[in-house]
Amino acid sequence: MRVRAKKWASTELEENKYIIKMDMYDLENAKILKSTELFGNTNPMHVELGCGKGGFIMQLAKQNPEINYIAIEKEPRVIVTGARKLRELNEDKSNTPINNLRFIVWNVTNLKYIFEENSVKRFYINFCDPWQNRKKWGKRRLTYRNYLTLYSEIFGADGEVHFKTDNKELFEFSLNEFSYSMWQMQNITLDLHNSDYEGNIMTEYEEKFSKMGMPIYRLEGKFTKKVVEV
Amino acid sequence: MRVRAKKWASTELEENKYIIKMDMYDLENAKILKSTELFGNTNPMHVELGCGKGGFIMQLAKQNPEINYIAIEKEPRVIVTGARKLRELNEDKSNTPINNLRFIVWNVTNLKYIFEENSVKRFYINFCDPWQNRKKWGKRRLTYRNYLTLYSEIFGADGEVHFKTDNKELFEFSLNEFSYSMWQMQNITLDLHNSDYEGNIMTEYEEKFSKMGMPIYRLEGKFTKKVVEV
Repeated sequence: MRVRAKKWASTELEENKYIIKMDMYDLENAKILKSTELFGNTNPMHVELGCGKGGFIMQLAKQNPEINYIAIEKEPRVIVTGARKLRELNEDKSNTPINNLRFIVWNVTNLKYIFEENSVKRFYINFCDPWQNRKKWGKRRLTYRNYLTLYSEIFGADGEVHFKTDNKELFEFSLNEFSYSMWQMQNITLDLHNSDYEGNIMTEYEEKFSKMGMPIYRLEGKFTKKVVEV
Repeated sequence: MRVRAKKWASTELEENKYIIKMDMYDLENAKILKSTELFGNTNPMHVELGCGKGGFIMQLAKQNPEINYIAIEKEPRVIVTGARKLRELNEDKSNTPINNLRFIVWNVTNLKYIFEENSVKRFYINFCDPWQNRKKWGKRRLTYRNYLTLYSEIFGADGEVHFKTDNKELFEFSLNEFSYSMWQMQNITLDLHNSDYEGNIMTEYEEKFSKMGMPIYRLEGKFTKKVVEV
């Protein structure tokens, strides 16, 4: 995505208290994110990978105050819009504040630098880059088997990935990857907006494309570590 | 499907030696099908559920002489066309005969009356009845979880279901059922005729509908009995 430079963005990025200050290029100084330190409680963490402007996760955070949300995005000029929106919402005293959401500029490849085992119980992946040429770039897709392994290592015993896309080929690929990795899938739909699934929260992107009549594909992948007692 | 009565059909049904003579309504006298008795060898059996006019399985049988094929269809007026074709092909001495295929008029619900455990290693399900009203008729779909259990009981230790349909909602349903049942899927495609999958054999129905530009959905479900040694 080509992103226009925003004049206010660098100040916002530095000063917005909902943005976790960590340099995605300085892995040596990366720190593990903990619910107790960030939110002052021990609630479970759910994480969105590639949150864009954050509309989806802000709604989610509002609906579920008992969950702590981390919104990850590698593009600072995009994430800053969401963080500003959250700050402004919370500064307006007529609103119920959203205290269970933080943003971080980070790369999904390096998730293990900021999350320890058992710290996350759900990842959301919404309309991630389809990396169109599967044979050339398939390994970069966020539902590629190596990424699923990475997520499962952060889950520990169990966890879920909730995945949506408008890209048919990426969805087909993802079905195969989840199945290959022996995750159990549920609520698979090839047309979310004409399905029985309730409680869907639309992303900015989804709103635009579903209005154009394009089907949205969705699945939930459940990972459970197989424990064999001998 | 409304099927026109064929004058020659009843004679063909009675006399065609490639049709296994068993009455689908007389379960008391049903007999277990055995490779040794039917084909005089111990090759594995692959079975098509709902073979229609049998074009698909005849091609398959021709390509794989080391596999024994059983084509099941509950509609005698449809199956008889395939059986006649096979008889005529084998009577024509200029052809290489197909000796590894038999037809049977039978109901899938009663598979266990004719197959014992470990006798079948693959089921083909091609364009089965989608039973459009899922909530009312979903349990009748040949990929419903209870049917998958039935197939797995016939497989014994392991086996595969190869499934194709042009019905999007049925395919979505099937993805969920296979996943629910913890079968591992592979070669899932949402558009078979524009996919990498090679060696597809088209059914009569498929030829017609894919020509009209309708996507064909396909998956392979693998069942493996989990053996936990204690």
